[in-house]
Amino acid sequence: MAERPLRLGMAGGGPGAFIGPVHRMAARLDDRFAVVAGALSRSIGKSREQGARWGIAADRLYASAEEMIAAEAARDDGIEAIAITTPNASHAAITIAALRAGIAVICDKPMTATLAEAEAVAAVVAQTGVPFALTHAYTGYAMVREARARIAAGAIGPVRKVVAEYPQGWLSEPIEGTNAQAGWRTDPALAGAGGAIGDIGVHALQMAEYVSGLRVTELCAALSRVVPGRRLDDDCNVLLRFGRGVPGVLMASQISAGERNGIRVRVYGERGGFEWAQEVPDRLILRDADNSLRILHDGAPGLSDAARAATRLPPGHPEGLIEAFATLYRDFADAIGGVPGILDGRLPGITDGLRAMRFIELAVRSSETRRWLSFDGETL
Amino acid sequence: MAERPLRLGMAGGGPGAFIGPVHRMAARLDDRFAVVAGALSRSIGKSREQGARWGIAADRLYASAEEMIAAEAARDDGIEAIAITTPNASHAAITIAALRAGIAVICDKPMTATLAEAEAVAAVVAQTGVPFALTHAYTGYAMVREARARIAAGAIGPVRKVVAEYPQGWLSEPIEGTNAQAGWRTDPALAGAGGAIGDIGVHALQMAEYVSGLRVTELCAALSRVVPGRRLDDDCNVLLRFGRGVPGVLMASQISAGERNGIRVRVYGERGGFEWAQEVPDRLILRDADNSLRILHDGAPGLSDAARAATRLPPGHPEGLIEAFATLYRDFADAIGGVPGILDGRLPGITDGLRAMRFIELAVRSSETRRWLSFDGETL
Amino acid sequence: MAERPLRLGMAGGGPGAFIGPVHRMAARLDDRFAVVAGALSRSIGKSREQGARWGIAADRLYASAEEMIAAEAARDDGIEAIAITTPNASHAAITIAALRAGIAVICDKPMTATLAEAEAVAAVVAQTGVPFALTHAYTGYAMVREARARIAAGAIGPVRKVVAEYPQGWLSEPIEGTNAQAGWRTDPALAGAGGAIGDIGVHALQMAEYVSGLRVTELCAALSRVVPGRRLDDDCNVLLRFGRGVPGVLMASQISAGERNGIRVRVYGERGGFEWAQEVPDRLILRDADNSLRILHDGAPGLSDAARAATRLPPGHPEGLIEAFATLYRDFADAIGGVPGILDGRLPGITDGLRAMRFIELAVRSSETRRWLSFDGETL
Amino acid sequence: MAERPLRLGMAGGGPGAFIGPVHRMAARLDDRFAVVAGALSRSIGKSREQGARWGIAADRLYASAEEMIAAEAARDDGIEAIAITTPNASHAAITIAALRAGIAVICDKPMTATLAEAEAVAAVVAQTGVPFALTHAYTGYAMVREARARIAAGAIGPVRKVVAEYPQGWLSEPIEGTNAQAGWRTDPALAGAGGAIGDIGVHALQMAEYVSGLRVTELCAALSRVVPGRRLDDDCNVLLRFGRGVPGVLMASQISAGERNGIRVRVYGERGGFEWAQEVPDRLILRDADNSLRILHDGAPGLSDAARAATRLPPGHPEGLIEAFATLYRDFADAIGGVPGILDGRLPGITDGLRAMRFIELAVRSSETRRWLSFDGETL
Repeated sequence: MAERPLRLGMAGGGPGAFIGPVHRMAARLDDRFAVVAGALSRSIGKSREQGARWGIAADRLYASAEEMIAAEAARDDGIEAIAITTPNASHAAITIAALRAGIAVICDKPMTATLAEAEAVAAVVAQTGVPFALTHAYTGYAMVREARARIAAGAIGPVRKVVAEYPQGWLSEPIEGTNAQAGWRTDPALAGAGGAIGDIGVHALQMAEYVSGLRVTELCAALSRVVPGRRLDDDCNVLLRFGRGVPGVLMASQISAGERNGIRVRVYGERGGFEWAQEVPDRLILRDADNSLRILHDGAPGLSDAARAATRLPPGHPEGLIEAFATLYRDFADAIGGVPGILDGRLPGITDGLRAMRFIELAVRSSETRRWLSFDGETL
Repeated sequence: MAERPLRLGMAGGGPGAFIGPVHRMAARLDDRFAVVAGALSRSIGKSREQGARWGIAADRLYASAEEMIAAEAARDDGIEAIAITTPNASHAAITIAALRAGIAVICDKPMTATLAEAEAVAAVVAQTGVPFALTHAYTGYAMVREARARIAAGAIGPVRKVVAEYPQGWLSEPIEGTNAQAGWRTDPALAGAGGAIGDIGVHALQMAEYVSGLRVTELCAALSRVVPGRRLDDDCNVLLRFGRGVPGVLMASQISAGERNGIRVRVYGERGGFEWAQEVPDRLILRDADNSLRILHDGAPGLSDAARAATRLPPGHPEGLIEAFATLYRDFADAIGGVPGILDGRLPGITDGLRAMRFIELAVRSSETRRWLSFDGETL
Repeated sequence: MAERPLRLGMAGGGPGAFIGPVHRMAARLDDRFAVVAGALSRSIGKSREQGARWGIAADRLYASAEEMIAAEAARDDGIEAIAITTPNASHAAITIAALRAGIAVICDKPMTATLAEAEAVAAVVAQTGVPFALTHAYTGYAMVREARARIAAGAIGPVRKVVAEYPQGWLSEPIEGTNAQAGWRTDPALAGAGGAIGDIGVHALQMAEYVSGLRVTELCAALSRVVPGRRLDDDCNVLLRFGRGVPGVLMASQISAGERNGIRVRVYGERGGFEWAQEVPDRLILRDADNSLRILHDGAPGLSDAARAATRLPPGHPEGLIEAFATLYRDFADAIGGVPGILDGRLPGITDGLRAMRFIELAVRSSETRRWLSFDGETL
Repeated sequence: MAERPLRLGMAGGGPGAFIGPVHRMAARLDDRFAVVAGALSRSIGKSREQGARWGIAADRLYASAEEMIAAEAARDDGIEAIAITTPNASHAAITIAALRAGIAVICDKPMTATLAEAEAVAAVVAQTGVPFALTHAYTGYAMVREARARIAAGAIGPVRKVVAEYPQGWLSEPIEGTNAQAGWRTDPALAGAGGAIGDIGVHALQMAEYVSGLRVTELCAALSRVVPGRRLDDDCNVLLRFGRGVPGVLMASQISAGERNGIRVRVYGERGGFEWAQEVPDRLILRDADNSLRILHDGAPGLSDAARAATRLPPGHPEGLIEAFATLYRDFADAIGGVPGILDGRLPGITDGLRAMRFIELAVRSSETRRWLSFDGETL
């Protein structure tokens, strides 16, 4: 059972932040972490304001993540892990500093702003052996893990087709001038070469591979800038080939007006198919070859250990995104505690991070050249 | 905005408990409460074991709730509120002791074991004026509040029909010998005169009244003991009349095999109807008179302040039962902070508690006599 | 295989009629009947106009059903069956005349306007032995038959609870002055003692008994006249007891604003439950005791003979109400052809008709007296 | 209103046929056609057997469609239209013979076996001016027409993205040896160059264009032969560009195990999106930009004339595929009767047929070369 909570420092999460507070709620939910230090804002005043509200000691609120890492590493009761929820461009530097200080890292996606940074981070992970986790939060849902476990166990036979979609509609109007979230995501200087493909396409890719157990080997992408004046793609459609030649499709869109946050994955095998949709996350649809649908529910008897370990409540008592995030933090605590096989297994890590950054680059290039590319970058 | 967290003591919630830990997660989620004291188990050893895990100081772990109330009331930094998650039979005594000590109470439902106890609690609430809240957790969901707000604002015109259902299937086999949760719920000595009607029927009643804004005035109940050998009702069906003669139906069942936790309410008015189902809690169905369905989603623009205040995440990011519970804790903190109109308003309090206990008694009597009764107890 | 179509005469179905043309489409769909004669309207002119359009020989269009029966009975190639789609008040007389002439009857529901008439019809059915069928059309859906067959075969164990609902919203405004369909249904002189209970409550009763295989033995009804000025019930809620004391609930409403034609039945047994809803008729939901849902589809492999015999198209190709009606006509043709066990079995007949008329009378009386009644009429 | 039924001859539809009888049921349903002649089978014996059952005069049952056309054209009361439900390879010859004889043609899809044949048919249509219709049956559903009408009227603003899917699972095992339907569809000699792309991909294309009002201008296809030993594609994924550069995706699959007949189309515009799925055909989902879903229902008030004209029953009374087919026959009768703008408008005709045949050719070529192609055949 859980012992004392691990000591966590937060980078990001100041007043007005969205994802930082979600990380904190998730980290605390199962008492696997206590938030004891923070560099919550580039403004030390705001950092202290938020930190006080959160009960963090004043002397452990820092002006920058780098300062926090240095100071905490020098304490006997210093942080054992850091949660990185700052803008993407700062991820690589903070991650590398933390890893070198022996502090485990859990980083919001995307891992870095560029593929080159991602490769640099990967080198440090390999070199230091310090745990590095990436919060592809949807992988924390019990029924995603149920699908993954059943497919791995052969429940539907060899996988034959994978469809991953991520439709959103919130960028269907040119709100980048007035909405901060929209602003940086549509600005090449801040978001990198990918718009929707980088923001949500990578979630779809990661989910496709996570659930199916296959890796994409080839792709052909069509990226569009649908809203007039937009400088990065806001709609992406990609043909995929996975290992063994398995066909697939990936769609990611932020101009699908009326859609909320519809990430959904379908994996078909020889003997049936699974479908999971994030907006009703406690259900997993199994299409049987006999044309019946079986809808499996979170918490029900007969589910895998993988799902059970990601469930807090009895059947029919919904858990949501915060709980899914919390499951990643549980996994992260287990990984820090030395449980083997978690990172790059049920908990996304450096491998998923690297693949995502490469995928963005390839998708952009494929779309520009209108050609199929191998995942190694070869034109086909 | 939220200042420092209020100091909360927990009664119940020891190792193996279900609802106690949910209360704690909920209380902490939005930083409105910090759990600083506990009488977590009748075994002080277990109380200390759990308390240590939760970071409660050893000297604030107590052997009983009564001891906790006495000791904490004497401290300058004593608890300001108590969460009661012990077995029903102990609710009244703990509640009364806390209220008399000026400690605000948030109590799991049902409020008490008997109607007489409920009336005693109500007297003390009236006398002391100390806040008393009841965790009918489903009232914490944003879309329940949206329905309530829209109906109150006349969105569907005067209410004409109310149907509240609560089907479960987990007691469809005689598991009371081996399952502790089933054991006490089916034992008249521990659960009182009502089985399913007391355990979940009261949730359906409360939801029907909370959403519709109407009060039940008459009822005719048919309670059944479906599983052979069961000593309390496990299936209940009740005809209702609300104020203005509005007809209604309430169904509560724990032998509806295959059902999970299907509490669902439908309210029809002159110009349309609302439907909400707990298992997909972030959706509210509005049936328009033009035969279209409108499905409203948690977090979307255009929702009421009531719903917005109960929402943490953007559209399409599910929140679940823990978050709904946390919303009740937010309300409770506001009530303690002196915000008027919350208790017995958006946050269930003594009125709902009393009505529920009376409802149980009436339903049992109506079923035995096969007669309609008024809510005042008159045979019709 | 099917031989030549049987010769059918139609009573009712003139210009502007709704249900008469549905009967004709259904009768012809599978080539089991050819419509060769008609008394389509009380106006012989309109009868001829419609008859010409339908290709009926001019000399076989009659001024009244009674005339048609007399004339056709005298022909060598006279009609072998009559479809009665006239207003309720005329059903009994036409039925009795046809049966006495040896002409098989398929009659739209309700069977008659009064219980006394129903008993008179029943006596003639018993006396003549001529086939009599009642078009409770929903029993023609394949998945209703699948549920019935599986329950009869013990798929969910002994039945323990039955819930039948029939919400509609089309009478939520007082349209009786301007809408002919509404006019006669809300007029006691034309519709008899029952409003919604007689119009659609009987469908719910019949469906409950048809699918569950049980019979109602006791009931307690609450009928309401919700729309001001309405003279017959427009909302009905009924507590039921079936044989073996099985509890049940029946709801029928025509003021549930926004509802279309939502007849739905749920039957729970010891080991699971079935749910069927008319608006998605090709699906049958099986709730398994393991908390999964299995959704069975019309046309799929593994379904019962009963469902297969009621299916025309492969899986995923929807069939609707006309096809369900047509299945009743298939059954009726088989019954006329001498196949035993069809009437009062898979095809509703005199028994269902009698029970429905008795149910209306009992529900009205129970509601007025606010007492439970046995199905034999005893006050409990 | 409808006058006398038009005289229809059937090519195909002998004993054991599937689609022929559907055509006949549909043609007769609304009394716009009477089936008076037939070349129902290549065996005259079988043709007569079926014809007798259907009430066709013995002297109007023929040994071949060509013979029927010749003989009927010579009669004063000869057929006015022919329904072609024979194997694809015979479509072109029969169609051309009929058109030259002045007999209107309604042909099952695909229009022909090859693009060259399609062009030949198109030439004769142009030359003779005789009505030619193609039964893309899903275009007969009321809610498909509602979506088309609303999009054309600007309800969601300019279209920005189109996704058309057609997953089936029935060929997920190599059943071609034992299942006749599978046999010819997977045989290049009988089915032509396209497998799934030709059998169902063309439906998806036609639906995408029909509903959106846009035309595909460029495509990049990935066709797979998933089942070992299969000689034609059984899974197809296609990136699309429509006019104005609008992006799209088309998926058609017959190895998506567990899927039945899931054709589904989504069209997103600037201000919302429509979704329609064939398996629940009487519903149209409108995603509003405010994140609510509106589900529109067949038969409801407020729908377009286009939908109303394709509806027979009140709201909540499902209509299915036979009725959708019947709507095409209604349109066809109107077109024969001289109503302008129906063919290649609401009723698919030669244009859709030609585009489909070209699409098959392009998709096969694009997949083989792994290149984008323009709809004119240019490599991009």
